[in-house]
Amino acid sequence: MILHPAFAVEPWSLRETHLDLEILDQTESLFTLANGHIGLRGNLDEGEPAGLPGTYLAGFYEERPMPYAEAGYGYPEASQTVVNVTNGKIIRLLVDDEPLDLRLGELRSHERELDLRAGVLRRAAHWRSPVGKEVRVSSVRLVSLVQRAVAAIAYEVEAVDEHVRVVLQSELVTNEPLPHVGNDPRAGASVEAPLVSEQFIDHDLRAVLVHRTRQSGLRMATAMDHIIEGPPGTDHEGECYEDTARLTITSELGPGERLRVVKFLAYGWSQRRSTAALRDQVAAALSEALHTGWDGLVAGQRAHLDDFWERADVEIEGDAELQQAARFALFHTLQAGLRGEKRAIAAKGLTGPGYDGHAFWDTETFVLPVLTYTAPDAARDALSWRHATLDLARDRAKLLGLEGAAFPWRTIDGAECSGYWPAGTAAFHIAADIADAVGRYQAAHEDEAFERDVGLELLVETARLWRSLGHHDSAGRFRIDGVTGPDEYSALADNNVYTNLMAQRNLLLAADAVARHTDRAAELDVDAEEAASWRDAAQAMLIPYDEGRGVHPQAEGFTEHQPWDFEATRPDQYPLLLHFTYFDLYRKQVVKQADLVLALFTRGDAFSAEEKAANFAYYEALTVRDSSLSACTQAVIAAEVGHVELAYDYFGEASLMDLDDLEHNTRDGLHIASLAGAWIVAVAGFGGMRDFEGKLTFAPRLPQRLNRLAFGVSFRGRRLRVEVTHKEARYSLRKGSAIEIAHHGETLKVTTKRPVTRSIPKISAGEEPQQPHGRSPERRRPS
Amino acid sequence: MILHPAFAVEPWSLRETHLDLEILDQTESLFTLANGHIGLRGNLDEGEPAGLPGTYLAGFYEERPMPYAEAGYGYPEASQTVVNVTNGKIIRLLVDDEPLDLRLGELRSHERELDLRAGVLRRAAHWRSPVGKEVRVSSVRLVSLVQRAVAAIAYEVEAVDEHVRVVLQSELVTNEPLPHVGNDPRAGASVEAPLVSEQFIDHDLRAVLVHRTRQSGLRMATAMDHIIEGPPGTDHEGECYEDTARLTITSELGPGERLRVVKFLAYGWSQRRSTAALRDQVAAALSEALHTGWDGLVAGQRAHLDDFWERADVEIEGDAELQQAARFALFHTLQAGLRGEKRAIAAKGLTGPGYDGHAFWDTETFVLPVLTYTAPDAARDALSWRHATLDLARDRAKLLGLEGAAFPWRTIDGAECSGYWPAGTAAFHIAADIADAVGRYQAAHEDEAFERDVGLELLVETARLWRSLGHHDSAGRFRIDGVTGPDEYSALADNNVYTNLMAQRNLLLAADAVARHTDRAAELDVDAEEAASWRDAAQAMLIPYDEGRGVHPQAEGFTEHQPWDFEATRPDQYPLLLHFTYFDLYRKQVVKQADLVLALFTRGDAFSAEEKAANFAYYEALTVRDSSLSACTQAVIAAEVGHVELAYDYFGEASLMDLDDLEHNTRDGLHIASLAGAWIVAVAGFGGMRDFEGKLTFAPRLPQRLNRLAFGVSFRGRRLRVEVTHKEARYSLRKGSAIEIAHHGETLKVTTKRPVTRSIPKISAGEEPQQPHGRSPERRRPS
Repeated sequence: MILHPAFAVEPWSLRETHLDLEILDQTESLFTLANGHIGLRGNLDEGEPAGLPGTYLAGFYEERPMPYAEAGYGYPEASQTVVNVTNGKIIRLLVDDEPLDLRLGELRSHERELDLRAGVLRRAAHWRSPVGKEVRVSSVRLVSLVQRAVAAIAYEVEAVDEHVRVVLQSELVTNEPLPHVGNDPRAGASVEAPLVSEQFIDHDLRAVLVHRTRQSGLRMATAMDHIIEGPPGTDHEGECYEDTARLTITSELGPGERLRVVKFLAYGWSQRRSTAALRDQVAAALSEALHTGWDGLVAGQRAHLDDFWERADVEIEGDAELQQAARFALFHTLQAGLRGEKRAIAAKGLTGPGYDGHAFWDTETFVLPVLTYTAPDAARDALSWRHATLDLARDRAKLLGLEGAAFPWRTIDGAECSGYWPAGTAAFHIAADIADAVGRYQAAHEDEAFERDVGLELLVETARLWRSLGHHDSAGRFRIDGVTGPDEYSALADNNVYTNLMAQRNLLLAADAVARHTDRAAELDVDAEEAASWRDAAQAMLIPYDEGRGVHPQAEGFTEHQPWDFEATRPDQYPLLLHFTYFDLYRKQVVKQADLVLALFTRGDAFSAEEKAANFAYYEALTVRDSSLSACTQAVIAAEVGHVELAYDYFGEASLMDLDDLEHNTRDGLHIASLAGAWIVAVAGFGGMRDFEGKLTFAPRLPQRLNRLAFGVSFRGRRLRVEVTHKEARYSLRKGSAIEIAHHGETLKVTTKRPVTRSIPKISAGEEPQQPHGRSPERRRPS
Repeated sequence: MILHPAFAVEPWSLRETHLDLEILDQTESLFTLANGHIGLRGNLDEGEPAGLPGTYLAGFYEERPMPYAEAGYGYPEASQTVVNVTNGKIIRLLVDDEPLDLRLGELRSHERELDLRAGVLRRAAHWRSPVGKEVRVSSVRLVSLVQRAVAAIAYEVEAVDEHVRVVLQSELVTNEPLPHVGNDPRAGASVEAPLVSEQFIDHDLRAVLVHRTRQSGLRMATAMDHIIEGPPGTDHEGECYEDTARLTITSELGPGERLRVVKFLAYGWSQRRSTAALRDQVAAALSEALHTGWDGLVAGQRAHLDDFWERADVEIEGDAELQQAARFALFHTLQAGLRGEKRAIAAKGLTGPGYDGHAFWDTETFVLPVLTYTAPDAARDALSWRHATLDLARDRAKLLGLEGAAFPWRTIDGAECSGYWPAGTAAFHIAADIADAVGRYQAAHEDEAFERDVGLELLVETARLWRSLGHHDSAGRFRIDGVTGPDEYSALADNNVYTNLMAQRNLLLAADAVARHTDRAAELDVDAEEAASWRDAAQAMLIPYDEGRGVHPQAEGFTEHQPWDFEATRPDQYPLLLHFTYFDLYRKQVVKQADLVLALFTRGDAFSAEEKAANFAYYEALTVRDSSLSACTQAVIAAEVGHVELAYDYFGEASLMDLDDLEHNTRDGLHIASLAGAWIVAVAGFGGMRDFEGKLTFAPRLPQRLNRLAFGVSFRGRRLRVEVTHKEARYSLRKGSAIEIAHHGETLKVTTKRPVTRSIPKISAGEEPQQPHGRSPERRRPS
């Protein structure tokens, strides 16, 4: 696990057995606790040393101007950057006047553990101060999955063999200085001292700080309260300033004696609510947390996760690392989305400032399929967030001369924040990705209220977008010209196959939804004529095909372009975008991330098996995977066309993206979509699950090294469990009425009483496709 | 002339008969004097009021950082901006303590005249001060076409009816504050106080200021000297500071008495020379100017222009406005290029800060054809400037992963300054435009030394660029993918016809030149194999054709795109780029400026007459002329395909671009390429001149309103004069040995002794093509 000797391979936790400051900033990302609303990076309790201090609130951002060397009409003028908000994690310790600092003195032991079942981060340290005083320190940190506004830390210090004086400072710190971020465009911009104090109050063990941002005008509040247990004579004192609140606890500990402090934190933010209202809101959340108490919070956490794992656990036998990685991935996917409640799920979740805290299409395309089948409410809420931004998207469409809604390529609050339109605004497929996620959630959960209030309007407005974005040519074909598909090494091409196929689905989903809700559709001014025009466009959609090569070009003309010279490209020249111009990349056959191959997955219903095999082989030879969004899709299609061992290699890459820091930027936050991708490989790859037309079908097949794979799917009130071995697959219903599914093309009926077992047919795949020179995935298959 | 009652229509001058401060900044551009090295905007002598003060030196710039909202590999980090250098034009006058300011007191008369034969700007004013003192002021200003570093002003003030005390302050002023430029991307960025003083000296009537720029590290010097003639008692005193030198002349004038001051100015700049060297350089230039004297400078100016007009005058009978406009255009084209001497000819010449003072492809495509046939040395020098930047262009090619030389889209010193690569770096046709200009100059003047030292290397390095930029597809066709053609409302398309045809010529020109200079070619490492590969690529060049529509698509796929909705576009939404996104424009059929139609002109040898007619009609309906580089080309092809009256309308537009301020930005400087285009319409449009394969051919045909057109062409040491009436054309050789030309397909031999006259055949053109709704040119044809 994480290519570092400090990490242990364990099924239900990520455990670091000793501290290595060299990888501190990566581990801060890995050890992040979050609930979709609050995110606390795994910074050390005492604040220093720190790689990148980070405390985030979903949707809370500062604005910064976007400069252009040459301006253009419709370019966004301001971007949004996630703010490192008031840090409530800090608990500093002084032992006989020496500050606990792991860089000083002697660290006799240090362990951190992210417990995936308990949902807490535990830490235990045994430290000898520079003057020889020894203490044992332990902390348990949680961000509540139940009480959305609440986090808590139980902190203990114990004198080992001598009497010690200890001073413990529990703090709230605003506007922490952040390290410089460097020039990697994937990192985020940091805003210096973004928060202006509005109010600060303390009383006894409690303190509240209220701040607002300078430009975006958002307001936030943080509050802390404490329970102190220490030997007699333990004392405390509070103080509070604009950017700092501090509770100082002093105590004297004999050998074996302990000081224990439970720190409760509450966070809130609002665009509209007043200082007083927000202050009171966090105070109330804090009171509720105190009422629940530490043990109650811990128990709630466990109960929530027990239920989650029961529904959603992915069991992998035969590869302990990937077992760990799969659960780690699912845990972080849950943390990113769970209590988002109409805020965006960012590419990095709440684990770091990478990509400025923006949300992209990753959310709908990679994260929401996972949440749809494992934590449906989170999927619903994320789509409700998109719905809440419809006015901004309609304005943007208008600006672009289009009908309906044009959703932003990257954003926090719904406004377009892309400063490079060929790889931003032009990537209109995001509209269809959102519609696809709506359709998937709706088909999987038959959520009538959602469809009427949220889904229908999203489908209608995106269908309108496509209808106005495309046009019928003189031969009657519906063309979508000059857009950018998922592959960011191509841009502004005509009739991108992924885009056109996804738009086709979007148009049909919308027309179907309108037919189901004619009354509500009428309120949205959709009539039968309009819906018919969507069906017509979908029907006439142009899907280019290269007869000569027997493959689909990614977009018109693509297969005619010059192939990239992979032989002449050195390993240190990847990712290519940092070493070659867009000009060079765009005009040649080189693929950053699955594009046509993603269409083979998401629109697998539109391709024959032969087409899939031919297309996969063709694009496999061109795809360099300079994006973390590629390996999982390649794995899924590799598995489908029979290259299960190749799929297994890709499974490793997708699952270990952050645990092995494969892209060298885990420091900036976790790649949530790639983590979600690990689930996708397990379920859609080796489980072969597809959900076309709202039907669940499976075509499981394991790679050699795995003995068993099991996963759970929540579907229309049911809990389906799928267990796969090399020989057979077993489908069992843990909850709900009978369900019809398919296994390798055979329709089956599964009930809670009658699990169904079927054997797995052999597949004969052709020759294994080749990747570009030097770009094969790390071999994980047995040799 | 200039749609303003102050302007008179005269054949040899631009005369403003009274002052209108509303149009002061446009007139400053129109009244600019320049010699390709120094440019003095037509600012009033007294400095204020001013629209936009401007004094420029070709090639002298300051650097400024280029910001990007999202950075990319290979993006230029710094841009270059023309600097408003030390203003030597200023001569302030006080009359009985009242400053002469045309906004105060009473302006009884005011006239300015740009004399196109004398090459001077004359001014005469009769002013009554607020307290009632009257003076007559006159000035004559010139920028020497003979002495490159020199400008001069003869200034006179005369007391009218009362005794007056006059104080005259002749100044050099550095770092003048400039007005804010607004947000039009076509205007230039202004740099505040760009110059740092290095030395300032004055002695008696002379003063020198030496400065350097802060970032680019360029050094410049300005010097002034004076001759004073006034009544007895006239006195003077000099003073000098870092950014100001001032000679104050005091005098008392009785009625009818005059004070006359001749101010001599010298300018110089260098990247390498020391402060002392530069100071001495301008002092020497000044001494030479004093030695020549005012009358000598005026005589030299006249002699130079007499010779020029004798060679190059365009006579237009039947439309006095266009006669004036044509000469005005030719005069400014000459002023932009004449003494450039290995500096770039900027898009605005030296008339204003528009486009940051950058040079584009306009120079080679529009300006150099004119200079090649009217002032060949200037064309040679401009190409020598390109040659001098080859190292930068080779570096750029390397960065882009290409062979040979990639010339910048916009630049002052040769470094790429484009901050938006899809409409900058991707417009590789500039390489072929340069090669075309080399080929044209070489064919027209058989300049052996130029070809060996300059032309060959430019051809070789651009051919190498094309060979590496394109590739052979599986069918053996040579494709050039993902580039931007001349039309800036399309970008990044495959096989742009203009680009491919021009690249084809480039490859062949290079192969031919290599064959003529095998020894020199060997020094450039060109062997027969390489030259053969250029011929192969040229031979295999893919030229897409739309069989269904019977036209050439501008680039592959273009004719399949959605047509722009011109009916729905309001007049105030032009230029479209200020009201619609690039996204919207790029993906639809809408053309900013002649692109395929430009290919019909420059590669007219590659199209049949039928193809030209069909293509012209097709693109005419899509071309909105949001660029000043379009009307002239449309005029030329309109004339060729027989729509002579439409050509005439376009002639008006091209010729009056600045005189009528058609694009509302004449303030920022003149559109030199459009002015050159006026000559192109006359000569290539109504004269039907073509120069394919180095042969001059003519196919003259006049629009109804013109009675006679005559123009001169310098060609291989000869001076050919062409005179055209409705009935016939007369070709006469004023100088040089016999020449073979063609008239409407008939080959003719013309000698100095034997002019040849031929009648003009009738042409039957089809229906007149339609322009987009509301975008027809102003009707100039008789109704």
